Amino acid sequence: MARILTLSLNPALDLAIRLPRLTLGAVNRTEATHLTAAGKGVNVARVLVALGHEVTVSGFLGGANDAPFVRAFADLGVEDAFLRVPGETRINAKLAEHDGRITDINGPGLAIALDAFNRLVIELDARAGDPARRPDAVVIAGSLPPGISPDELAALIRRLREHRLPVWVDTSGAALDAAIVAKPNAVKPNEQELAEWAGESLTSDAARLRAARRLHASGIDEALISAGRDGVLWVGRRGAWLATPPKVSVASTVGAGDTLVAGMLHGVLAGLPVEESLRMATALSAESVRHVGVGNPDAADFDQLQQHTRVRRLDANAEGALA
Amino acid sequence: MARILTLSLNPALDLAIRLPRLTLGAVNRTEATHLTAAGKGVNVARVLVALGHEVTVSGFLGGANDAPFVRAFADLGVEDAFLRVPGETRINAKLAEHDGRITDINGPGLAIALDAFNRLVIELDARAGDPARRPDAVVIAGSLPPGISPDELAALIRRLREHRLPVWVDTSGAALDAAIVAKPNAVKPNEQELAEWAGESLTSDAARLRAARRLHASGIDEALISAGRDGVLWVGRRGAWLATPPKVSVASTVGAGDTLVAGMLHGVLAGLPVEESLRMATALSAESVRHVGVGNPDAADFDQLQQHTRVRRLDANAEGALA
Repeated sequence: MARILTLSLNPALDLAIRLPRLTLGAVNRTEATHLTAAGKGVNVARVLVALGHEVTVSGFLGGANDAPFVRAFADLGVEDAFLRVPGETRINAKLAEHDGRITDINGPGLAIALDAFNRLVIELDARAGDPARRPDAVVIAGSLPPGISPDELAALIRRLREHRLPVWVDTSGAALDAAIVAKPNAVKPNEQELAEWAGESLTSDAARLRAARRLHASGIDEALISAGRDGVLWVGRRGAWLATPPKVSVASTVGAGDTLVAGMLHGVLAGLPVEESLRMATALSAESVRHVGVGNPDAADFDQLQQHTRVRRLDANAEGALA
Repeated sequence: MARILTLSLNPALDLAIRLPRLTLGAVNRTEATHLTAAGKGVNVARVLVALGHEVTVSGFLGGANDAPFVRAFADLGVEDAFLRVPGETRINAKLAEHDGRITDINGPGLAIALDAFNRLVIELDARAGDPARRPDAVVIAGSLPPGISPDELAALIRRLREHRLPVWVDTSGAALDAAIVAKPNAVKPNEQELAEWAGESLTSDAARLRAARRLHASGIDEALISAGRDGVLWVGRRGAWLATPPKVSVASTVGAGDTLVAGMLHGVLAGLPVEESLRMATALSAESVRHVGVGNPDAADFDQLQQHTRVRRLDANAEGALA
């Protein structure tokens, strides 16, 4: 069991709304609504707890509406180290209609003052220097809130690396670009985010592998690429692997990437062979898409899902074979 | 200054979402979201406070997400007598696009157990019997939550009337029908709600007047009918009046009816002549539609709005004149 800190700089409350059909410009009646604590960092924490780790969650929460988070953290049994800032954490609405159509309405997030960011850095410094609280790894997951620039994210990553803390990052766009320059230990872009970073469309396994190798060569120890049903690519210090998940019926892909990050981090911290970590994490991510929420390692058929996950090592000439 | 109790049996948090354009089935980015305590009872309370009254707000709130209400009540300076029940108060989303299109997504509300309803009745009994807390009037505003039937609303109205408390009701549909049978002192349907009660479409001032007279004759002391820019109809013990509001540019009609109820109740409790009450309440309601929110009696041009509100008494033969 490891001690892991997840950082959510721009968390959200998810408002799930189910209704028969949404008519724009009209008054619609819902069947059910549900407000839950959300965000990639919270999802990663949920999976890590299920895998037996001791988890601390941190980042920024609006003090005005933190109750659903406080409840979720208590239910999960994680340490709540979120800094409270004035205002409301954003609420992202997800509208699900009977015909299966899903409409997401996502807010920019609560603006964070530099002062609050500095308080977080001081808190993390203290934590890194305290043997009783020092984490074995830090996961920074999700977007940046208004007020925090990609450069500030990069500075935070460097700071954590100076403390010799392993840092895993799952973000996108300009934040991902800046994070990569700061050389965290691992990043987990999906294929689209990798393509944006690479500046080219990645339409084949071979193209993805080339881009992931470039990412690894740029100074990232472990590059983890999620490509949906095309599988998971892992290019790291020990080589390159491609995992292909078993076919599952897709209920929701939300949380699949977060599950993958948590599963791989679990394997790496446990010192498992890469094949084994990648198989477990890929199967767990496939498990997550069968339902709403993150992957459940206690699913009755989880062993079977792992058996049906294909993992193969890619040698230096693999690009040709994959093309 | 009077002491007034407003009852919100099915309150809501309003999630206002502003975005350039909503695309169904896609991920949309908002410009701003804001979560506020809402509901007709809260709106009525807001206007009554602005008019100088001492207000207590009550009804049912989900204990899990009452923070925005607690803040709003503290800001307003009203007494919070809401019963907390397990679960979440519903969140109604209002999506405003750049082109002016508004889409409302409203939930059914938090189910209320009979036990909680009985606790509310006991609390109201105690309040009615305590000279230090007894209200001068009770306003019941808004819809019924799942679990509370129209018959229970009727029983509540009768109970309050047995305590000789003046009761004003603003609701719709089956709840309005049942409320009317229980003979509250005043009801405020809009033209559509009145038409539903009357069982006929009310396409003219004369038809509305006939229906309002029938409503008054059924045992309602004061029937207040809001008909948007067609004006406000008041049929009560002292006669019948029609008020025509000044022309204003419409920003939002939400809260206009609640403003009208609060304004009229203010006039009646202050013992003002009907003409004066109706002029003030109609002008205040017109003030409210110029912006988001309820009417502001401190608006710089409020005297002017009142001067441009036309109030005329309708005699027994008015139906012909109005036809």
